[in-house]
Amino acid sequence: MPDATSTAAATAQNVLRDLAAIRATNPVVLSITNYVVTNTTANALLAIGASPIMSHAVEEMAELLAFSGALVVNLGTVAPEYLAAMAPAWAAADKAVVPVVLDPVGAGASRLRTVTPLALLDSHKAFIIRGNASEIMALAGASGATTVASTSASTSAPKGVDSTALSEEAADFASALARRHNCAVVVSGEVDIVCAGQTQARVLGGSALMPRVTGLGCTATAICGAFAAVNPDPFEAALHACVAMKVAGEMAADKASGPGTLQLYLYDALYVMDEKDVRQRIRVER
Amino acid sequence: MPDATSTAAATAQNVLRDLAAIRATNPVVLSITNYVVTNTTANALLAIGASPIMSHAVEEMAELLAFSGALVVNLGTVAPEYLAAMAPAWAAADKAVVPVVLDPVGAGASRLRTVTPLALLDSHKAFIIRGNASEIMALAGASGATTVASTSASTSAPKGVDSTALSEEAADFASALARRHNCAVVVSGEVDIVCAGQTQARVLGGSALMPRVTGLGCTATAICGAFAAVNPDPFEAALHACVAMKVAGEMAADKASGPGTLQLYLYDALYVMDEKDVRQRIRVER
Amino acid sequence: MPDATSTAAATAQNVLRDLAAIRATNPVVLSITNYVVTNTTANALLAIGASPIMSHAVEEMAELLAFSGALVVNLGTVAPEYLAAMAPAWAAADKAVVPVVLDPVGAGASRLRTVTPLALLDSHKAFIIRGNASEIMALAGASGATTVASTSASTSAPKGVDSTALSEEAADFASALARRHNCAVVVSGEVDIVCAGQTQARVLGGSALMPRVTGLGCTATAICGAFAAVNPDPFEAALHACVAMKVAGEMAADKASGPGTLQLYLYDALYVMDEKDVRQRIRVER
Repeated sequence: MPDATSTAAATAQNVLRDLAAIRATNPVVLSITNYVVTNTTANALLAIGASPIMSHAVEEMAELLAFSGALVVNLGTVAPEYLAAMAPAWAAADKAVVPVVLDPVGAGASRLRTVTPLALLDSHKAFIIRGNASEIMALAGASGATTVASTSASTSAPKGVDSTALSEEAADFASALARRHNCAVVVSGEVDIVCAGQTQARVLGGSALMPRVTGLGCTATAICGAFAAVNPDPFEAALHACVAMKVAGEMAADKASGPGTLQLYLYDALYVMDEKDVRQRIRVER
Repeated sequence: MPDATSTAAATAQNVLRDLAAIRATNPVVLSITNYVVTNTTANALLAIGASPIMSHAVEEMAELLAFSGALVVNLGTVAPEYLAAMAPAWAAADKAVVPVVLDPVGAGASRLRTVTPLALLDSHKAFIIRGNASEIMALAGASGATTVASTSASTSAPKGVDSTALSEEAADFASALARRHNCAVVVSGEVDIVCAGQTQARVLGGSALMPRVTGLGCTATAICGAFAAVNPDPFEAALHACVAMKVAGEMAADKASGPGTLQLYLYDALYVMDEKDVRQRIRVER
Repeated sequence: MPDATSTAAATAQNVLRDLAAIRATNPVVLSITNYVVTNTTANALLAIGASPIMSHAVEEMAELLAFSGALVVNLGTVAPEYLAAMAPAWAAADKAVVPVVLDPVGAGASRLRTVTPLALLDSHKAFIIRGNASEIMALAGASGATTVASTSASTSAPKGVDSTALSEEAADFASALARRHNCAVVVSGEVDIVCAGQTQARVLGGSALMPRVTGLGCTATAICGAFAAVNPDPFEAALHACVAMKVAGEMAADKASGPGTLQLYLYDALYVMDEKDVRQRIRVER
């Protein structure tokens, strides 16, 4: 078993390789996402070097997927006009062998938000599923998951529960979910937990301000899409995305005076992040 | 009658009490709002300590209201897919005794924007109605209100009319509207006027840059939702929300170099605002 | 033929005249636009002094156009609920003699995104068409245009192609398109090319960071709307909008540490931009 320092160094190397690939090839990430975060996740994707397309027009999904490197399906807006595009788009992605990242926003908070991602997962192939603890537990069928309902719709801010303890409680459910769907699962939180097969990794860093910015969970999902477009291994793609977000969040927090400025400096950080930033700030535990 | 200083000091104390309650309990504020401000109002709610959920999915409204502290109904987007959720959600809120804050965006600017909030008010219970002068006058049935039509859809910037004079003209209409619906009414402007029953209060402060940022009126409405979730008195909740916005706007203006940076510093200010900030900057007149 | 310096000086004078008119009269710019940029384009319009209304409610289009100075039709979101409003709104604008600015977002990237603007142009009167090189070439029927498909939906970032060379390749197509529809056509890029009749002008400046912010192309379109509301000549309105964007972008880049802060400083620059800024930074070539 490698020690923590060598693990972090090896992961940093791989993150930097993928980051360079994103910046060199500008992969198209097609997103069906919620109306709270269309602008902010597009900006995050542009900042890291990807080429975002935000659409929920069923008619063009197959055409757009023909030149897309990844598809993001984000369930933040569960209105009919958004939901209608998801299954056809995902089916087209499966056919075109485009990796799909699912964000089950608010799973557990309402019946609709729980059954919709489960139905999508039943008939399609996920590459990465990313959510917060209560969302992942709701998907994995954990009883009691719905009691943390406020971790929902537009925010990953946990409420009235110690978020690290909750993430650890969700870890086993996440691993089970990952094995069930043969994909990677990310439990975002103060510590991100990345699961696939029998493997788990924890990513530390970021900033306590991050849950006070709307849609940074959705942004992590979008960034998973960027890494999915350049790395065929779901665990690595998910892990590298979490590292990029934690490093950028920490860089942003160094300059921010609150959640408003944090969001802007986060885009700046995704854009300027270099080898030194990643090597100095990465904190990964296996 | 208390003098101005003691009124401000007493109000500051109450604002701080409510602010502490919001930050301690992170109340869920469910918003059916327009697509211009979903992101920015969610960020404002997170910054002040509330837990935003943005949704217009009819199917989940009753479930979400079961754990929501307030419902915001914002008429900025009057497309059918948004309107469809409002009456059912509001009916569920009335049944669950959840306070509802109405923002009649653009009332007076089009027939649809005038009749829609009136129809909603006819059959539901409002806790707070917040708009700019022309919107409130249009709701109150003031003749000539529709001539200030550009105070609409996405902006509270008045056009070609002295905004303070217009607000004062709207004050009596606002009081009448408040009594008719047994709620509080806020006329936002350079001076905010808060009305309920026979009482009126005026809140000064903020920044001349604020009307040059889109959706700060909608943000005030969202913040009304946060205070409504912790204070059962509609007049106090509305007044405290106006104070929080004026104080935060003034704090933001101290650092901003234009409307772009003002918006970001406003979130920062809502997040960091403390006892000293409120006590030093509050300006309330009864 | 005037030398470059006198051309720039004369253009600066005219830009400043139009800018003063926008700030003095706050023209309403009604936008049917995509959900990625509703907030950011509204903020840009407010910053420069216009009064934005964002709506896609068919029922109110004619009423809103009665007091609008321009209509922006942006095809970024091609979902049915957005498309439904465009033809009726444009027809009402034609009837009310309100200038219309068309942004064919993603033309060439999907069949839907190509045929929709062409169909709208067939039966309505455009004042300005603004897009990036591949979008304009797709509209003009250039073979091969669709190969640059990633210049789409939410970004004007070109991919894998030298953007200046591509813009120059698009220039003749743009001129043909402008003559066909008797309007002005803008090809946005590192160098903006403005075409009408037999005339072409090039506008330099801005910042290499601009393509890394989502929706700055859409923002240029919105700003075209503001100038269209105060200048009856489509070529001049388009040219002045391009100058305003390039000058503001350059001013913003002087302060920005990445694409996140650039976007905010761009609004600040549109708001504070004065005679000295325009005269010193304008770079126009005929």
